[in-house]
Amino acid sequence: MMAEKLNFNSNVFEKEGIELSNRKEFIVRGGRHLFPLLLKAFKDISQIGIIGWGSQGPAQAQNLRDSLEGTSIHVKVGLRMDSSSMESARAAGFTEENNSLGEMIEVIRESEMVILLISDAAQASLFKKVFSNLKEGATLGLSHGFLLGYMNSIGEEWPKNINVVAVCPKGMGPSVRRLYEQGREVNGSGINASFAIEQDFNGLATDHALGWSIALGSPFTFQTTMTWEYKSDIFGERCILLGGIHGIAECLYRYFIAQGSCAEEAFLFASESLTGPITKIISKQGIKAVYENLSDNDKEIFRCAYSATYKPAKEIVAEVYDEVASGNEIRSVIMAGDRLKEFPMGTIDQTPMWAVGKAVRAQRVEEKIPVHPITAGVYIAVMMAQINVLDERGHSYSEIANESVIEAVDSLTPYMHYKGVAYMIDNCSTTARLGARKWAPRFDYILSQLAIPALNKNAFVDDVLIERFLNNKIHSVLAVCAELRPSVDISLQN
Amino acid sequence: MMAEKLNFNSNVFEKEGIELSNRKEFIVRGGRHLFPLLLKAFKDISQIGIIGWGSQGPAQAQNLRDSLEGTSIHVKVGLRMDSSSMESARAAGFTEENNSLGEMIEVIRESEMVILLISDAAQASLFKKVFSNLKEGATLGLSHGFLLGYMNSIGEEWPKNINVVAVCPKGMGPSVRRLYEQGREVNGSGINASFAIEQDFNGLATDHALGWSIALGSPFTFQTTMTWEYKSDIFGERCILLGGIHGIAECLYRYFIAQGSCAEEAFLFASESLTGPITKIISKQGIKAVYENLSDNDKEIFRCAYSATYKPAKEIVAEVYDEVASGNEIRSVIMAGDRLKEFPMGTIDQTPMWAVGKAVRAQRVEEKIPVHPITAGVYIAVMMAQINVLDERGHSYSEIANESVIEAVDSLTPYMHYKGVAYMIDNCSTTARLGARKWAPRFDYILSQLAIPALNKNAFVDDVLIERFLNNKIHSVLAVCAELRPSVDISLQN
Repeated sequence: MMAEKLNFNSNVFEKEGIELSNRKEFIVRGGRHLFPLLLKAFKDISQIGIIGWGSQGPAQAQNLRDSLEGTSIHVKVGLRMDSSSMESARAAGFTEENNSLGEMIEVIRESEMVILLISDAAQASLFKKVFSNLKEGATLGLSHGFLLGYMNSIGEEWPKNINVVAVCPKGMGPSVRRLYEQGREVNGSGINASFAIEQDFNGLATDHALGWSIALGSPFTFQTTMTWEYKSDIFGERCILLGGIHGIAECLYRYFIAQGSCAEEAFLFASESLTGPITKIISKQGIKAVYENLSDNDKEIFRCAYSATYKPAKEIVAEVYDEVASGNEIRSVIMAGDRLKEFPMGTIDQTPMWAVGKAVRAQRVEEKIPVHPITAGVYIAVMMAQINVLDERGHSYSEIANESVIEAVDSLTPYMHYKGVAYMIDNCSTTARLGARKWAPRFDYILSQLAIPALNKNAFVDDVLIERFLNNKIHSVLAVCAELRPSVDISLQN
Repeated sequence: MMAEKLNFNSNVFEKEGIELSNRKEFIVRGGRHLFPLLLKAFKDISQIGIIGWGSQGPAQAQNLRDSLEGTSIHVKVGLRMDSSSMESARAAGFTEENNSLGEMIEVIRESEMVILLISDAAQASLFKKVFSNLKEGATLGLSHGFLLGYMNSIGEEWPKNINVVAVCPKGMGPSVRRLYEQGREVNGSGINASFAIEQDFNGLATDHALGWSIALGSPFTFQTTMTWEYKSDIFGERCILLGGIHGIAECLYRYFIAQGSCAEEAFLFASESLTGPITKIISKQGIKAVYENLSDNDKEIFRCAYSATYKPAKEIVAEVYDEVASGNEIRSVIMAGDRLKEFPMGTIDQTPMWAVGKAVRAQRVEEKIPVHPITAGVYIAVMMAQINVLDERGHSYSEIANESVIEAVDSLTPYMHYKGVAYMIDNCSTTARLGARKWAPRFDYILSQLAIPALNKNAFVDDVLIERFLNNKIHSVLAVCAELRPSVDISLQN
């Protein structure tokens, strides 16, 4: 399927065409004023079961419950009876007493829509049991294409008699909840989501998916396929969202130390600059603004750093894409799951850099964090490499913008700024965490082996690369995307 | 197939049973006194074609030619007509004039035995053409199981009407040649090899394989299967042979700098100590001797370093094994081959450590290089992790000893000592080089994230781990293996 061919029809929500760099895509704008339409979107549904209580579970269960308040549609959380999350679900108001908490398989049997938010490993081991307990004509919802990737790798298929849809918020669960809550004051605040219709058994799949996304508070919902989604999602978190940013920070930290910085200054330049002002400028003004706001001298340094970094970055990013698209990465995640019993995953936050980071963050004066032109050049070169690899592989612009830029600068990186890159990685999903631990060292090494030596040899600017960067289609795509959401920051201190 | 079940029968060479930790394995001892038997071993062969002129090609072509001198068996090198190696083959005496150099496919058609030593990528793209040009009943020889791994991953099989055998020297080509030449003075000097009979079409496969190995100068030849071979070989080079050692050296270099060493001293402790005296002691006296030769104080430091390292090392080593055994690693190599056109492989020798290394080597006083107990503890912990993972996966002891210890300390590491770890990696086969570049950063990161912080927290000794190390079966296995070869060092300065 080509990006140009994607289209959909809804009986409930308004579809809107947008021009992304001369390519038409269709989206649905969200907002609280649409909540009254949810009953129509879910017309055949009396209960939505939310299965799992990890990162997305608590956010989606609460958002759906709040959005559907006062309707006849019941939201019920389903967990293993011995799950340690039962208590946390009860604390969020999902209890056995009010019939909004129950045993996982029971909840699957009762619900007309089942949103499966258990871990990837649990999906891989339980999917047959889940399928066999779904009602005929039920809608199975996923927030991530991993299960499809896994099923592909072992030759399995969806049951024929159900709808299969995905709604994938482009941010982690806590942000999905936090921005929804802010949306009570600012209509449309939220995290964008992609949606995919994988199987439409009864003609209602599209409205179920769009209703779900709007109930989550997505400011805009763009279309993808589940195959594209799992590729771009697993790929993105291994690159600029998590693994790449960790590798960049480690590499640059050593670089600045070698240049004579003390540990605190090196952290300031390598990590604070990146997770702070650079990210913020991209979020508010776009990628190019980071460069354009620099002094002439810093512009030259940026161009050198970008020129030294782009090709090695594209080499490693292309490798990640191939590993994901071939199924290797999914096989790796499943095999790693088997090894976790013998080797529980350690944390990455014990290296000197992250200890220094804690101290630096404690004394942080936000306005004094500089935009370091080398850090900006390296980071943006990796980001552009990711954008170009996705574009060359045929992904839609809305997906590229979300997986490469918006999810980074509006969701993950601000959280890293708040808690540290290492903390963020040590506390995300197993699939993402495994991927970040696998690829961060690769980003670090290839940049240290190829980009930094080129940078040290000095002042080589590849004018063609810089020209291509400045004229990349992504800038206009991001400008359109920026118009589609109110400018509500992800506040992390509340 | 279990290691215990391996056995073979030769009509020409004497089979010898050895006890490796209470398990019987069969080997063939080599030596120049056996060269007169080669004519019998190759009785149905008038020409052996050596295809390819990379690392193994020049060594094997010359050794075979020299060993078969004066017999009726002709050795002929086959290359692409436009190969840049033609000149080098001619310089070694393989010329069109004396009919010992020709076009690859022609040579395959003419020969009763075809030893295929082209690169893994070339094997993957050309194997069907090679197969279709083999004589009925010819013997196809490989020095590496990669092609079988690749064929498995795409569901292909060997032609039914040929013998398929492997003889896999446990060292790189230049060493295979150099030790053969030394063998003119010291009978039996050489690099050990494994052999495998994958398909015996006419009952002569075993003698062809053993004759080939003896003609190469292998002091002893042990048996394996081609499946075990490609798994242990691809695995081994990603771990202790290349990737692991690179990661260890980078990690320890930073560790010693953080401890206050200057760059030169850090290199001395992290790399020189490892590639020099530690390796030499293991080669001459076994693994345990490194520990036993230390002072009491250094023994305690070794135990701390070993305790801090073993578990993270085993975690990453187990991951490498799974990735190789699942076929992921072979798929990765093939995909990387496709990307090499856009992204030619860069070198790894530009980082500060390897620049310092050059200077340190230039001033080296061999006797003054210390056995650093931390470096010894970390290196040996990784080596033991590799040994134990192979053992748990059912590999034979002779293979474990060769892939984890003997090939390291008798072939690759001495070469690294001579030229530098980075140089060695930048100049080995594409498959090995890709693997080392992929896994070195992973070793570095997991050791930096888990082993070094544990070591810094200090003085934790896991007595059970140390006890298991000291009582590991590998020590007696290595003692038996050590008796099977004369103690000829791999001299690199000639």
